[in-house]
Amino acid sequence: MIRNATSILGTASILIVGLAFNGGCDRSVQFPVANRPPATPPDQLTQVSIINALMLGQYDGVIPLTSLLGYGDFGLGTCDHLDGELIVLDGAAFQVRSDGTIHRVSPEEKIPFAVVTPFQPDGKFDCPAAHSLEELDALLDKQLPGQNLFVAIRIDAQLRSIRLRSVPRQEPPYSPLADVAKTQTTWTRNDVEGTLIGIRSPPWVTSLNVPGYHWHFLSTDRRVGGHVIDCQIKTGQVSYDTCDSWLIKLSESAEFQQENLSRNLNKELEEVERSRGK
Amino acid sequence: MIRNATSILGTASILIVGLAFNGGCDRSVQFPVANRPPATPPDQLTQVSIINALMLGQYDGVIPLTSLLGYGDFGLGTCDHLDGELIVLDGAAFQVRSDGTIHRVSPEEKIPFAVVTPFQPDGKFDCPAAHSLEELDALLDKQLPGQNLFVAIRIDAQLRSIRLRSVPRQEPPYSPLADVAKTQTTWTRNDVEGTLIGIRSPPWVTSLNVPGYHWHFLSTDRRVGGHVIDCQIKTGQVSYDTCDSWLIKLSESAEFQQENLSRNLNKELEEVERSRGK
Repeated sequence: MIRNATSILGTASILIVGLAFNGGCDRSVQFPVANRPPATPPDQLTQVSIINALMLGQYDGVIPLTSLLGYGDFGLGTCDHLDGELIVLDGAAFQVRSDGTIHRVSPEEKIPFAVVTPFQPDGKFDCPAAHSLEELDALLDKQLPGQNLFVAIRIDAQLRSIRLRSVPRQEPPYSPLADVAKTQTTWTRNDVEGTLIGIRSPPWVTSLNVPGYHWHFLSTDRRVGGHVIDCQIKTGQVSYDTCDSWLIKLSESAEFQQENLSRNLNKELEEVERSRGK
Repeated sequence: MIRNATSILGTASILIVGLAFNGGCDRSVQFPVANRPPATPPDQLTQVSIINALMLGQYDGVIPLTSLLGYGDFGLGTCDHLDGELIVLDGAAFQVRSDGTIHRVSPEEKIPFAVVTPFQPDGKFDCPAAHSLEELDALLDKQLPGQNLFVAIRIDAQLRSIRLRSVPRQEPPYSPLADVAKTQTTWTRNDVEGTLIGIRSPPWVTSLNVPGYHWHFLSTDRRVGGHVIDCQIKTGQVSYDTCDSWLIKLSESAEFQQENLSRNLNKELEEVERSRGK
């Protein structure tokens, strides 16, 4: 499915501000206030669906992007049919496909899984140099508050290197994510400037979200992005937003209702989210 | 701590409508619109804290009752210091202490755990006669939709009998709920008319809420109430409200942040919530 400016302009109710660039990538798609849910509190983290539904192959979108953006201007997720990695940054939504290309997301595209918040930093600090993502997570743990709250973390950084992945669009009947992840594409870029978009979830979110850190990346020139599997940070600035309210939007679909979503998929999730790639 | 009309009237910003009766019990405490959170969506279930925090003895209130009532006019929970069973019905909040007496709850009282929703029924049906709570749950399962959604259930019923419990107020340092539950009081009443206030949570809420049915009761004359451990229903009317949005308000307290909330307490929870009493 190709999403282009024509299809978006065809949606008369949508206000588009800004210029498209980089093959359809647009940093500043904005939506009329009427499309936003009323007054999302600044410290509310909103997620679409639960991670176990995604793990079990529920890749059909639940709410349209335009609704999702009403719940936050910062976050991450995936696109309809699991078509790549979703990045929400400064209120604009980007899709990184499995071929590494970056596209803007249509306002009416339905999102199957995502986590967003209105990003209003509670604190900032210099990002320590980190030789791996594991080291970065450990360094952040020393400085971030509240292990039992959600934290949205933005790192604007100069990176020595970054290893990314994305997943290919799926068609029904869907395979479980652990199987799809075996067909993921990974790539490495050196000397990149950009933004790490992170969500740290408490350890007890098991089966609902990804416990610990979950990172996506988008370069400043919007040409490099994806789900982060490793990185080396030279310098950067961390800003973080602690969230004490957590809203989950569940699917009313028959697939969601009928699935056994309580099974323990921790091992598979760890493999999918933390895999360092081949 | 005695909560009485004087302390409530001392809070000038609170509008009280209605007459107190039954030893301080008031069916119609109302609050100014300004105190309500903005526009809680009708299909949103809001909970205060997570069940594992309560299980581990976190009995200090998190948000005031007046805020809680902004999130819903129907639900259940407990009071500050675990002081009894909380019932929210038609926008009014009732506390059933361990001696079985029923009191209204002060608007400023902080609530440590509760689940509420703006009750707007999606459907109604006649309540089948049931000889036990277990049978009632099984009968409802056949008629209620969406095992992976939350359902608020109101049953206005004539009961042949009802077995109730409440728990005594605690003082810090708090004991775990499984220990406190051993000191619970239980009592049985026959031929009662009243309302069963139920929340059915999906099986995957483990550690966050009570999977399955959770029932509190309040008699029509507001003289009998508590956490339901068993009942026999003669006749009744069921109305239910399906919720596809789930908001959790987390505590920012040091106790909450420092606790290991991911441990598996399923067995203890089952014992606390389903115990048939001695």
